[in-house]
Amino acid sequence: MVLVSPRNPLNIGAVARAMANFGFKHLSVVDPYEPHWREARSAVGAPDLLEKAHQTLSLADAVRDCTLVLGTGTLTHRKPEQPVVRLDELAPFVARELDRGGRIAVVFGPEKHGLTREDLSHCQVLVEIPTDRQQPSMNLGQAAAVCLYELAIRQTPAIPISQGFDIESDSDSTVGESNIVMEPIPTSGNLETLASLVEQVMVAANYSPKIMQKANQHDLRLTLRRLRLRAHDVRRLLGLFRRILRRLQRDPS
Amino acid sequence: MVLVSPRNPLNIGAVARAMANFGFKHLSVVDPYEPHWREARSAVGAPDLLEKAHQTLSLADAVRDCTLVLGTGTLTHRKPEQPVVRLDELAPFVARELDRGGRIAVVFGPEKHGLTREDLSHCQVLVEIPTDRQQPSMNLGQAAAVCLYELAIRQTPAIPISQGFDIESDSDSTVGESNIVMEPIPTSGNLETLASLVEQVMVAANYSPKIMQKANQHDLRLTLRRLRLRAHDVRRLLGLFRRILRRLQRDPS
Repeated sequence: MVLVSPRNPLNIGAVARAMANFGFKHLSVVDPYEPHWREARSAVGAPDLLEKAHQTLSLADAVRDCTLVLGTGTLTHRKPEQPVVRLDELAPFVARELDRGGRIAVVFGPEKHGLTREDLSHCQVLVEIPTDRQQPSMNLGQAAAVCLYELAIRQTPAIPISQGFDIESDSDSTVGESNIVMEPIPTSGNLETLASLVEQVMVAANYSPKIMQKANQHDLRLTLRRLRLRAHDVRRLLGLFRRILRRLQRDPS
Repeated sequence: MVLVSPRNPLNIGAVARAMANFGFKHLSVVDPYEPHWREARSAVGAPDLLEKAHQTLSLADAVRDCTLVLGTGTLTHRKPEQPVVRLDELAPFVARELDRGGRIAVVFGPEKHGLTREDLSHCQVLVEIPTDRQQPSMNLGQAAAVCLYELAIRQTPAIPISQGFDIESDSDSTVGESNIVMEPIPTSGNLETLASLVEQVMVAANYSPKIMQKANQHDLRLTLRRLRLRAHDVRRLLGLFRRILRRLQRDPS
């Protein structure tokens, strides 16, 4: 779970509590407002995971090791650039990712305006909580609880009631700690490396006029996340583009 | 939704907000602590439904018109006397009740100790939110959000996704305002054009030894088909690789 620039210490505490309720352990906080962050961490009864939370300067750093990054938010003001999946339709994506040994991050934006377009460019999928049109915007702690509930029940599937016996749930295994390895998939960090190499090639090939570089960078990031590249695709592309770059740099023109 | 003797005005407000988020309108409050109840109702931005809430002296009064009364709580200390249903298993009960024109109440107890045995005797079913054993007890506002989410999605069933990330097609029919437009997909011919251009670049960059060319060609074709590129991705890649190729061919080495 990743919180980008959270403001309200009560909300940070509420998110941490929901994580503990549903058996999640890894919290990262990007660029928090320091006094409030300290306050949240030192609150009475704050769960352990808040003490152990990672603090990073950028969202890119926070999701570097993740293979599926889920952004959250309401869609009222923005036309999303990535696929949108309703929270209650998310199960197959999560299952597939965990089956192939991936690590999932769920990202929440600041209370006031949510994730920015730039933040969302690090996400493969935008998760929409199906709220009422009259009042679409949820409180951060409640939105986190609902998302974590949905993710948690996918890992301990319900036993049909007719059988009526008790299960020893293995709530120890949380999202993001699955270790079945199928096919290696690239992490966010791998994709960032590739994106920056492709950018260098674009510049070296004089493909992208200076004025377009920022926009291209954004598009490129979105595109690489949409393509579901595998780890070996990324390695090959890195190899090819490195070669191209070396060649281009030798070109005197 | 029925709250029995809630104490914390922030929690009352959070419950009301979650109700508004998920489109629920009828709140009853049993025997509230008056000053806090007044405070919650007069809070800035309190949803309408808080103003219109019913106040009763007993739980029996609050659920008088309901046909299915769902109690909530954790089961750590108590051996329940009624059937227990996990929240994520609740759907069939709810569907059946609504189909036959019933009215459902969801009842939450006071923050500190939850519903008493006496309270629970008014409930047909005890709903258990599947929380972690280490930290089973949820915040009232978050527990309400999770329950209301689960009830709400049963009324606007999700469209099954069976095809991976190809969700553009019928996302119109989801809750909210999805505005993703069907996007043209590249033809096999487009992909072949791209593949042969990439091959030329590989050769020009001396990336692929002669002996590997056949194998690379095959892999490249497979990869391009696997990536679910869109028509505009193909156009862009063509533009970029054409540029690279021209540059490489100028290179004297």
